[in-house]
Amino acid sequence: QSSVQLYGMIDIGLGSFQRPEEQVVGGGIINDWKRTAKLDRNNEQTSYWGLRGKEVLSEDLSAVFLLESFFRPDTGELGRFNSDQMFTREAYAGLASKQFGELRLGRHTTHLFTTSFLYNPFGSGFGWSPTIRHIFSGNEGKVRGDSGWSNSIHYLSPKIAGFNLSVMAAAGEKDTGNGGLGVVEAQSFMLSYNAGAFSTTLTMQDVKVGAASTQGRSQVTGMLAASYDFGLLKLSAQYTEIADKPTGFEDRIVQVGVAVPLGRGKVLASYGQDDTDSTDDTTLKTLSLGYNLPLSKRTDITVVAMRETQEEGVALAPNANSLRNYGRFISGNSYGFGLRHRF
Amino acid sequence: QSSVQLYGMIDIGLGSFQRPEEQVVGGGIINDWKRTAKLDRNNEQTSYWGLRGKEVLSEDLSAVFLLESFFRPDTGELGRFNSDQMFTREAYAGLASKQFGELRLGRHTTHLFTTSFLYNPFGSGFGWSPTIRHIFSGNEGKVRGDSGWSNSIHYLSPKIAGFNLSVMAAAGEKDTGNGGLGVVEAQSFMLSYNAGAFSTTLTMQDVKVGAASTQGRSQVTGMLAASYDFGLLKLSAQYTEIADKPTGFEDRIVQVGVAVPLGRGKVLASYGQDDTDSTDDTTLKTLSLGYNLPLSKRTDITVVAMRETQEEGVALAPNANSLRNYGRFISGNSYGFGLRHRF
Amino acid sequence: QSSVQLYGMIDIGLGSFQRPEEQVVGGGIINDWKRTAKLDRNNEQTSYWGLRGKEVLSEDLSAVFLLESFFRPDTGELGRFNSDQMFTREAYAGLASKQFGELRLGRHTTHLFTTSFLYNPFGSGFGWSPTIRHIFSGNEGKVRGDSGWSNSIHYLSPKIAGFNLSVMAAAGEKDTGNGGLGVVEAQSFMLSYNAGAFSTTLTMQDVKVGAASTQGRSQVTGMLAASYDFGLLKLSAQYTEIADKPTGFEDRIVQVGVAVPLGRGKVLASYGQDDTDSTDDTTLKTLSLGYNLPLSKRTDITVVAMRETQEEGVALAPNANSLRNYGRFISGNSYGFGLRHRF
Repeated sequence: QSSVQLYGMIDIGLGSFQRPEEQVVGGGIINDWKRTAKLDRNNEQTSYWGLRGKEVLSEDLSAVFLLESFFRPDTGELGRFNSDQMFTREAYAGLASKQFGELRLGRHTTHLFTTSFLYNPFGSGFGWSPTIRHIFSGNEGKVRGDSGWSNSIHYLSPKIAGFNLSVMAAAGEKDTGNGGLGVVEAQSFMLSYNAGAFSTTLTMQDVKVGAASTQGRSQVTGMLAASYDFGLLKLSAQYTEIADKPTGFEDRIVQVGVAVPLGRGKVLASYGQDDTDSTDDTTLKTLSLGYNLPLSKRTDITVVAMRETQEEGVALAPNANSLRNYGRFISGNSYGFGLRHRF
Repeated sequence: QSSVQLYGMIDIGLGSFQRPEEQVVGGGIINDWKRTAKLDRNNEQTSYWGLRGKEVLSEDLSAVFLLESFFRPDTGELGRFNSDQMFTREAYAGLASKQFGELRLGRHTTHLFTTSFLYNPFGSGFGWSPTIRHIFSGNEGKVRGDSGWSNSIHYLSPKIAGFNLSVMAAAGEKDTGNGGLGVVEAQSFMLSYNAGAFSTTLTMQDVKVGAASTQGRSQVTGMLAASYDFGLLKLSAQYTEIADKPTGFEDRIVQVGVAVPLGRGKVLASYGQDDTDSTDDTTLKTLSLGYNLPLSKRTDITVVAMRETQEEGVALAPNANSLRNYGRFISGNSYGFGLRHRF
Repeated sequence: QSSVQLYGMIDIGLGSFQRPEEQVVGGGIINDWKRTAKLDRNNEQTSYWGLRGKEVLSEDLSAVFLLESFFRPDTGELGRFNSDQMFTREAYAGLASKQFGELRLGRHTTHLFTTSFLYNPFGSGFGWSPTIRHIFSGNEGKVRGDSGWSNSIHYLSPKIAGFNLSVMAAAGEKDTGNGGLGVVEAQSFMLSYNAGAFSTTLTMQDVKVGAASTQGRSQVTGMLAASYDFGLLKLSAQYTEIADKPTGFEDRIVQVGVAVPLGRGKVLASYGQDDTDSTDDTTLKTLSLGYNLPLSKRTDITVVAMRETQEEGVALAPNANSLRNYGRFISGNSYGFGLRHRF
């Protein structure tokens, strides 16, 4: 009997992208909306490989472990970005009791990221999911502390009357290991209720980050999400608030999504809006439309069209000190094809 | 049924080497021919480990993936050199049709490297193969763009009347991820014909590289190669031309090789000559003689003696501005033992 | 029949630590004994994953290989420390004869590290084992050349009349690949005798290291170790001497340990003392008390309390040039819980 499983997923595709990639130009930041046609990775889901295992210790108790590593299949590089580390998707060992739940120690995917990808039709894809793009990429509205927390304790309750509760705490040490995304101290909980076609989750997190430039920064984020599967279609919705101190900016992010079975696949649609209240009010609107076709249980292809629009609430003329395109309405259209293979 | 295979190869040995390792000394480049006896890796073949899988989707169609990572077993380090990345041997996912051929997206071994190692008795070994040494290592004669292309599309035809055609194109993005070896834009094809004991391949590639120091560089390389297995011996030959713009240098590289079954193993002999036409004409001559003994299908040992000679066509006295040994006839003899184990 | 095994071990826990972590402060070095409560890894044993295989070539001969990679499960990072490399635990291929012994080429765990962890109740744990802490961590008393040697040849004899002999030599090349811990040239042997409940080992190593700051440094280390399993308890003892040139410091390190079966687990106790004779005499005393409880053959938990005391033989007042706490008696108490899972 083997004690370890080797598995993973590779996501690669082609597309024509017109996305607001941030670039530092001459001391300022400029949003670059120029179109690029390229072979690209990780738009549907971030590729990874991993090792995991479970050892039954008694009728109630098991030991569990998991090590998962992101990679970029278009270049063969490790991680999600250049300074990313080996097993940053998740890395833990723990004990699982059927009766009392599961306790894991190590690095864990945050509850906020889990709730973000579970309740939108485009899942965890940084390429196409409005929710993931608004909350986990971009700059001003970005949630602090990465999508995984190092040095954390993760408790997952058993299911009780349809409810699941998870609690996570990252210990008070400085995590400088992951490209400056590290967390100094963080807590979160995720409370889910599942009954037949209905599912809902409430998640809250409080993060203190430690990069030198953001000393003393504390950020509280809450998300309420729900989905209902009518059979003919599945609806999902998410409402998120981010309150960032001491910068004082606030984000309100909404998403509504629908997945409609059609032929052997599904039509996917998701609209998200991200309103940032800060010294420069910004609204980011993203609409993604796609079709996902499973070729098997393990392999699928996806085609997507996405329109992303950025509206600046405060109209400022571009100037030397601020190269951002304030006062301009900017938008981009992206199109992509992706192949996803689980192994 | 397992969906993933874990496999690889480790090549390690001992030797006494007198090879022209380039060193930057005081602002110039000097070829150092001093003798070193050492435990060394990757002379027969570059060690690697990998994951691959194939999923049958229908009678005609399969999904395929592959992730392969080089390593250096003498130090335990990742990659071929210090700035190398995780899965740079190959990393792709794709769809394979028996009828229409295979399409792969990701990072792929170039057609030029494949043709280089298939038609010489010392294969892909950077230690002993004259062809690999002349085309892929060294400085002036070196082919641009690494032996694998990131961000590339690779199509492989089915075999039709003995012919196979492969076409590869690397998309127009800057690949800065792999130690400055990255490709900006590249295309190649490989046309092979196999019939019984006879095999021949024509390969051409056009590469534009993007390192700041080589902006605008474009390089076209063609190789014609053939082999014939007479039973008593197997002959192979390769002719290669490299035309590099705007530096204007041209390389002509020839190789003739023979493998003769003897006892349980094979005697291997390969002679290669690399003529570079540039401002400083150089001729590099390499003769390798060896014996390869399989201990099993998966394990073999090899002993090799190699003589490498560098002749400078234009006789220049060494001076402060150019520390290269111009005008001198220099040569070195290397001897090695290697153990190769496939797993 | 599979030709490769995938396996490893993950060690993670919680603790309150008061350990002398060295910090460079304002140009001097200060020992920081402040207490930190945190989720921590690798205190019982350094986590790793690996690939290994064995191929039977004949009745007597097999081919073997092994690749093992350390990692840090609390952050998901590769290696033991930031500049560590991929397969630094061990990486080799070799040939194993039942009659004549085994020859391995690559990177190998040193005989000194092996003898250090085999004869103390806390094994190879950098967190709790006095022997490992005194010999392989810390600064002045530290053994040179890492716990593994790159570019080395390792011969292991078969067992003859209860005796095993291993000999290792690292070739004369500069190994700069592993965070400055590299060895320039090194030799060692390990002679063991095992008969029933009694075991003893003599190990000696001679290391020349190559970091720029330690040119010409040569260090000779010898360890004599023994253990006897009385059934009711198992006693172990180690005596080590390190002579370092040209710095002239000498270390004498002793350890006595006992493991007492109690319930389903074992009570563990180890006392070690490290006397350094240098310009500033230092004595480091470490006492660890613990209980190890196996939950299965593959999973165990450990609780440990450790008291570490540093006495400075030469009483110097703290000053601007030397921020070390000379003349002060300093000590710390640490407590920890750990979960170890082998897969």
